[in-house]
Amino acid sequence: MIKYPNGKKKNFESAKISTSNRGMNLESELNQTNQYYLDLNLASIHKKPTPITIVQVSYPSRNKAKIIEAYFKTPSTTDYNGVYRSKAIDFEAKECHHKSSFPFSSLHEHQIQHLKNVLAHGAIAFVIIRFNYYQTTYLIKAEDVINLYYKGDRKSIPYSWVCENAYLIREGLIPPLDYLKIIDTLYFEEVNL
Amino acid sequence: MIKYPNGKKKNFESAKISTSNRGMNLESELNQTNQYYLDLNLASIHKKPTPITIVQVSYPSRNKAKIIEAYFKTPSTTDYNGVYRSKAIDFEAKECHHKSSFPFSSLHEHQIQHLKNVLAHGAIAFVIIRFNYYQTTYLIKAEDVINLYYKGDRKSIPYSWVCENAYLIREGLIPPLDYLKIIDTLYFEEVNL
Repeated sequence: MIKYPNGKKKNFESAKISTSNRGMNLESELNQTNQYYLDLNLASIHKKPTPITIVQVSYPSRNKAKIIEAYFKTPSTTDYNGVYRSKAIDFEAKECHHKSSFPFSSLHEHQIQHLKNVLAHGAIAFVIIRFNYYQTTYLIKAEDVINLYYKGDRKSIPYSWVCENAYLIREGLIPPLDYLKIIDTLYFEEVNL
Repeated sequence: MIKYPNGKKKNFESAKISTSNRGMNLESELNQTNQYYLDLNLASIHKKPTPITIVQVSYPSRNKAKIIEAYFKTPSTTDYNGVYRSKAIDFEAKECHHKSSFPFSSLHEHQIQHLKNVLAHGAIAFVIIRFNYYQTTYLIKAEDVINLYYKGDRKSIPYSWVCENAYLIREGLIPPLDYLKIIDTLYFEEVNL
C-alpha cells in the first residue's frame, strides 16, 4: 500500500500488469475489436443499445431530458450487427460461467428465431461464447446453434462439443478478439487460422 | 357521444376511418412495414433501440430492475439496419416539419460518417425523409446525402431537389411504406416502380 499526499491509498495488487486481456469482459473486448475494425476500415460492426421501455422523462433543465422511470425489455434480436466485405454480419455474444456446458437458457428463443431469419436472408450469423472457467472464446456458426437448439434433447451445448466443432478465437492485444479472421476462413475461403 | 353501461363515454369523432395512414408517424409506419417484411420472410430489418446511458438502477422487487436515472445519448449510427437479399441494409429515417427543405441539422455528423462507412463496406444505405407539410415520404440514396452534406455550401436539402432526385415511397395500407420496392429497382434491376 502506498499513501498518496491526498490521503488516498492505492492498492497496487489490484493493478497487476496482465499479459492478456483477462481483466476485460467480453463486451469490452468486442467493442474494442469493433472499434479497431472501424478505424482500419475493415468492417462496420456495432453493438446495439440495450432495449428499454421508457415510462417517464423529466426535464430538470431546458435542454436536458432525464429518464426517471424505465425498464429493461427482452431483446428480440441479437446484440451485434453490421457489414463486412459486402455481407451482413449478425451475432450474439455471451459469457458462460459454467464449466461443462453452455446453457441454452442464456439465449432467448426470439434470438434463435432472429438468427434463423437473418441466415435465411443471407447474413453471416454466429454466436460468440466466452467460457470464463477456461478463459477461452469460441465462435459457433448460427446454423450449428440452431440445430442443437431445436434437437430438443439437450438444454445446453457441451463444452466438449464446442472444443471439437466451434472455432477458437485467438486473443490478442490489438484487437483483443480478432473474430473476423475466422469469418474470412469460413466464408471467404482464406486460410488464416 | 354514446354512453356505455360502465358509464364511460366514447367519442366516435376521434375514431374516424382514415383512407391513408396519415395519423401514424413515420416510425410506426416503418416498424409495421418491417414487421410485414419479417412475417412474409422478405427481409429482416429492425429499428435499433434508443441509445441511453444508464446511471442508476433500483430493485423494487427481487426480479424487477427499474432504471431510475438515465440520459439520452447522441446516436453514433443510424436507426435501422438489417439484411435483405443477402445485402446489408442501413438507413436513417427522419420527419421534416419544414416546407422548403430538409435541414442537415436533423442528422448528426456521426450518422453521415456511419453511412459513409457502411457504404464503403458494401451495404445498401439510404435516408428516408417524411415531409409532413406535403405528406410525402422520399428515399434518398446515402451517396446523394453524403455528397450534398460535404458540398459545404448548403445547410439543407431543398425540397425541389428531393422531388427531382429522390424516390417517392408510395403509401399503402399493408405495408404502410413499401420502401424495398425502390431498393429492388435501384439495386436489383427490377422494374417495380
